[in-house]
Parts: sequence; structure tokens; C-alpha cells
Amino acid sequence: MLELRLVQGSLLKKVLEAIKDLVTDANFDCSGTGFSLQAMDSSHVALVALLLRSEGFEHYRCDRNLSMGMNLGNMAKMLRCAGNDDIITIKADDGSDTVTFMFESPNQDKIADFEMKLMDIDSEHLGIPDSEYQAIVRMPSSEFSRICKDLSSIGDTVIISVTKEGVKFSTAGDIGTANIVCRQNKTVDKPEESTIIEMQEPVSLTFALRYMNSFTKASPLSDQVTISLSSELPVVVEYKIGEMGYIRFYLAPKIEEDEEMKA
Amino acid sequence: MLELRLVQGSLLKKVLEAIKDLVTDANFDCSGTGFSLQAMDSSHVALVALLLRSEGFEHYRCDRNLSMGMNLGNMAKMLRCAGNDDIITIKADDGSDTVTFMFESPNQDKIADFEMKLMDIDSEHLGIPDSEYQAIVRMPSSEFSRICKDLSSIGDTVIISVTKEGVKFSTAGDIGTANIVCRQNKTVDKPEESTIIEMQEPVSLTFALRYMNSFTKASPLSDQVTISLSSELPVVVEYKIGEMGYIRFYLAPKIEEDEEMKA
Amino acid sequence: MLELRLVQGSLLKKVLEAIKDLVTDANFDCSGTGFSLQAMDSSHVALVALLLRSEGFEHYRCDRNLSMGMNLGNMAKMLRCAGNDDIITIKADDGSDTVTFMFESPNQDKIADFEMKLMDIDSEHLGIPDSEYQAIVRMPSSEFSRICKDLSSIGDTVIISVTKEGVKFSTAGDIGTANIVCRQNKTVDKPEESTIIEMQEPVSLTFALRYMNSFTKASPLSDQVTISLSSELPVVVEYKIGEMGYIRFYLAPKIEEDEEMKA
Repeated sequence: MLELRLVQGSLLKKVLEAIKDLVTDANFDCSGTGFSLQAMDSSHVALVALLLRSEGFEHYRCDRNLSMGMNLGNMAKMLRCAGNDDIITIKADDGSDTVTFMFESPNQDKIADFEMKLMDIDSEHLGIPDSEYQAIVRMPSSEFSRICKDLSSIGDTVIISVTKEGVKFSTAGDIGTANIVCRQNKTVDKPEESTIIEMQEPVSLTFALRYMNSFTKASPLSDQVTISLSSELPVVVEYKIGEMGYIRFYLAPKIEEDEEMKA
Repeated sequence: MLELRLVQGSLLKKVLEAIKDLVTDANFDCSGTGFSLQAMDSSHVALVALLLRSEGFEHYRCDRNLSMGMNLGNMAKMLRCAGNDDIITIKADDGSDTVTFMFESPNQDKIADFEMKLMDIDSEHLGIPDSEYQAIVRMPSSEFSRICKDLSSIGDTVIISVTKEGVKFSTAGDIGTANIVCRQNKTVDKPEESTIIEMQEPVSLTFALRYMNSFTKASPLSDQVTISLSSELPVVVEYKIGEMGYIRFYLAPKIEEDEEMKA
Repeated sequence: MLELRLVQGSLLKKVLEAIKDLVTDANFDCSGTGFSLQAMDSSHVALVALLLRSEGFEHYRCDRNLSMGMNLGNMAKMLRCAGNDDIITIKADDGSDTVTFMFESPNQDKIADFEMKLMDIDSEHLGIPDSEYQAIVRMPSSEFSRICKDLSSIGDTVIISVTKEGVKFSTAGDIGTANIVCRQNKTVDKPEESTIIEMQEPVSLTFALRYMNSFTKASPLSDQVTISLSSELPVVVEYKIGEMGYIRFYLAPKIEEDEEMKA
């Protein structure tokens, strides 16, 4: 039996809004450690990894490891019916082919349960090794989101270049070119507005803006986003989910023919 | 001659927004008692009854009973041109084939008059007898609106079931099922947020969500909605219009083949 | 070399949003006096004249007169990437076929430069003589905008009639007619809400609402709009741009066959 009670139900609502357009169907894996998901986007280019640790739930009961295949669009439809202040409980009986989402309003006047059919989804869990990155940029998630959106009005790809002084986002398209530089800024009084760069060596990589824009839908989850870059590795765009976990997006850099745009 | 001056003109604006999508053309009936309308929706399934009592107008002159056929879409277009704080006066000369809506801004700096052609509309006025209902639910109109909208993302019909403890709204569709229970709650300090159930006997009836959603467009008129239910009668969904009247929507329950959904 | 630094960059953003739908491509003319534009709309009916005086810029360097052909849609796309509090600098090298827009955030943490290709555009600069007008109406820009929008839901043209008492906006269409009268109102404590009429003689002219609605997109630039009317001249609809300049729209009145609508 599975019963996971999340007082801050709005987190789960935001998680679904963040990934439902990228991933159509996916298995949610439930174990003693937590509630997690790993899935490729429908065009098999980007990878999403979600973790909600068991300690973050008010009540967490998971008798045995369970993998529940869900259509994320349908799950998002149901979660949209939860109020932003509602407590959300995820329930499943052993061997059942359905999952139930229960929504309780803060004053307990309104209680809803939504039952959704589960799906059989083939998937293989990729081991993602911990890596050293050449550069890690931590910046306001709203700023990163704005930059990706702005550059999309000019071009299709973004070159992210990190130096000690700052991080530069560049693009080029039919109507012209654009460069946006964000300087390191360790603002003390408002840590959520700081831009912090940890750099081993300068790095410059090119990515499809379409995916970056998709990742930024997770911005409501966190004031800050962390972007980890290395020449040989997919970029990791990470949004923390309170104290209880994260969403990480992985995307391989584009190579060669796109590089000439830098000139 | 007809001259009806309504200081809180926004009420009339809201009335039109509430009914214009449900009813295309209708006769407004004006008598010494008040300004009223009764009309079937265009598919002849739901009935709308509107009453604005003469006492609610600052000035009410109606020399003889008058029935004015109007296209509600056009009337709504004109009323949208009134400011939310404007005083609205409805004027018609005897025998005229037009009606004039006059809008006065609160400081009298701006005065508009919109003249609309009247139409000849055949209609018969149905006598609606006062009935005893098995259950009457009074609840926040925003809550009822939210529930109908939420359930529409899952299914096409709603089963409304009333017991002493509360009222349950249920639906089912391809992606799963949903049940939302609102408990009786006689909140004392905020009466507009209360949910009050007057029940003679338990009742459970099925309705098309499409119509329910249409009715909830009247929510801006009132903090509370009253839902009156009996097995043998159309449901009445009523929104009070300040102290001066009401909009009531009538809809027959669905029968038999829909009932199996309850199982 | 050209380098124009505008601390209140949002003004330039608003200018582009005001004219980009009316004018597709246009030459911006830069001289010692200021940064200006004069262009016909794409159907050659309305004329736009923009002036930003050099004194309004924090830094204004223009070594020699320069005419820069720009696609206003593309320019607006780039300016939309500037924050509302950003400082905007327009830069061009002599003989270059590009222009650069630089956006600096208030705290200098984020600096962007957008480079756009220039175009060759044939245009002739019309001399617009200063004229005496029969009537000049100054009124809140939001009010004028609302009136044009409201009348558009009824008809295609507006008759603007000025008397000493006020200004009347009228239209007629299939569903009826509308008249909106704004009275002169020299409100002392809130000058931005005043309606002031300077009249030599009464005037009544007819204009296409489509263009009037287009002009009102400049409303965010100024609380007040000035409408100058004479029987023999195009109307001038003017929005001041702070202390530094203006946008003026010119539109010829409609004649004869439209006049019968007044009856």
C-alpha cells in the first residue's frame, strides 16, 4: 500500500506543470527513499529527473517499491483541480491499476478524490553518474527564464559562455544577433537575487532554445536555478523543490555546424 | 413611456454577461412590478428567469406593460460600453421600435446613449409553480463554479448527491473519476463563505456539466448560489441580484442510462 | 558615429509598441536636434511623426546626420527584450549597415546588446505646416482609447463634434447607434483627468475608427491626448513623450457619403 501526504500540495501541482509538456507518459517510482521520476522527452533529446524525498512528506507509507505509469497530461488535469493551499495525498493499493489523488482544503470543508487509471510503460532507468563540471552558474530562475524567452525572439540556439566575470548568453537569427551578459553578483541581503559563478575553466556550449524554454517552466518551483556546464557532458539545469528534492533537466550540447555562429 | 434608472449599473452588465451565451434573443417584460425575462436556451433544454424588482431602481416609470425583444449579444455589446461605476437608464417611447441605454459616469462628465433596434420574438411565458424541494444547498458561488469547471476536465455530467453531512459532486470520464465533497459549514463570521444544507430527504441527480458551467457565469452577481433539488423536478440554480431580484436557471435531470455511472 | 543614451528606456519601448502595427518599415532620422521619424502607414492613409529631442537623452552624440532604415516589427522584438527599468543606448558606426541597441539593468548586473541589420528605404519627408485649428480637445488618453474601442463594437466610423460644452463621439452600425459626450472639465487637483476644449468655431468631422484605435496604442506614453480638428485639415492626434518630444498621428477626414450617417 502506498500513501503519501504532502502538506504543501502546490509543489506537486507545479512539478506537473513543469514537466507535462516535455514528457507525455512516465513511470513514477516510489520507494522508501522517496517519490521519483526519470524520463526522456518525447523526442528523446532531453532527460528529466525528479526527486521528492520521503522526509518532505507529512506522512509517507510505501510498503514495497512501486512503479506507476501515468499520463502526465491527465495527471496535470487532475492536479489542477487541487487548490493552491490544499493538502494532497497520493494513494494506491497493492496490485491496483489505479492511483488516487486526494485534495483536502485547509479548513477540511472540501475533500476531493480523483482516481486515475495507471498505464504500463516500458522504461529503463539510466544511471546518471555524479560529475565534475567546468562551470556552475547559480542565478535567479526568473532571470534565466526571461533570457531564454528573449533570445527565442531572435534565434533558435543559445551559446552559453562562462568566464570568471560572468555568464554570456548569445544567439543569432535572420533579424540580427543578441548577447546578454550577467555579471557575478553575490548580493548579501537578497540571496534569491544573487548570481554566483563557480568556474574551474572557461566553457562555451550551444543548446537548442526550445528545450531551454521548456525547462524554465519549472521556475515557479524555485527562486534560483543552477546550470552545470562541461564540454563533454550534457548541461544540467536544476531547480530545487523546497528542502525536499529537485527537478533536473539534462540536455546534450549541439556541436560543430552550430559553432560557427560564435564567430 | 418607459424609464428605468439603475444606480448600480454594473448589475445589469453582469446580468447580460451571465445569460448572453445561453440565450440568443429574448423578450424583456416590463411592468409595474419590475423588469423581467424568461427564456429557454437555444437548444431548448435550460430555462432562465430574471427579475429586477421596480423598488431596486432609483427611478422606475413604466406607463403600461411592455415586452421588448432584444438580441442579447448586441445588448451585451452595448452594456460593455458602460463603465462599472456608471448609472444606467433604460428608456423606450411607447410604440417605438428601439430602446435606449443611457450611461452616466459618476461625476457626470461623460454621458453616453446607445440606441438598439428591438425585435419581434415569439415566446410563451411558462408558469413556474412554487415547489417543495427535497434538498436545498446554499454555498459560495465561486466554489460551485470552481467545482463545475474542475469536473468538466474529467467528464461530461455531474451527479449531485445531498446528505445531511454535505453535498457530493461526482463525475467519470475516460481518464478516471472524481468526487468532491463539500461539508455543511455555518461559518458565523463570514456568512458569504458558508455552506448550508436544508434537507428533507437524501437526493442524487445527474446533470449535463455544459449547462452547469454556463449557469456559473452569473457568479459575479452574488457571493452565494442556491441549488434546489428534487427527483421529480428540474434543478433550480439561483443567484440573488443584490436586494432587488434574482437570476434562476432551471435544468431537467438526466435519467436512466446516465445513472449507471454512479456504480 | 552615433550614440544616444536614454535613461528612461521604457519610453522607446512604448514608442515602438505604439507604431509598429501601423508602420512596417521606416527611416529613423538622427540629427543634432534629435531622433525623429516620419512615415505613412502601409495603406498610405495615416501619417506618423515622432520626435525625441536631443536634450531628453542623458548622452547624445550624432557626428553627422544619419537616416537609418529599420523594420519596426524587428526593432520592437528587440526592444521587448529590454527591462522596463533598463537604460537603452542606440549605437551606430559611420557607414555601418547595422544598429546596436544596448540595454543596461539599473544595477548594471545585466548588460545586453542587440544588433539589427539596417534597410534601405525610399521615403520623402513631408513638410507639415503649423496650422490654426478650429477646435483643440485635450482629454485623458485612457478615456479617448476607451471611447474608440467602445464605438468600434457598434460601427466603423466616428463623427467627432466639438461645441463649447463638450466633445461628442458618434457612430452607427447594424445593431444601432451610439453617442458619447464628454463635457469640458478643468479639474484642478488632478490635471491628468481634465478635459479641456479650446474652440474657435464648432466642427464636426468623420474618421475611420480602425485608424483611431491604432493611434490609441500610444496611450501608455501619456496621460493626456490632444486632438486638433479643422474642416480642411487632417486631424492631429498627439501624445507627448515626457518633456522630450511627441508622437503625432495625422488622418484625413472622410467626406460626403459618410456624412449622411449624422442625420
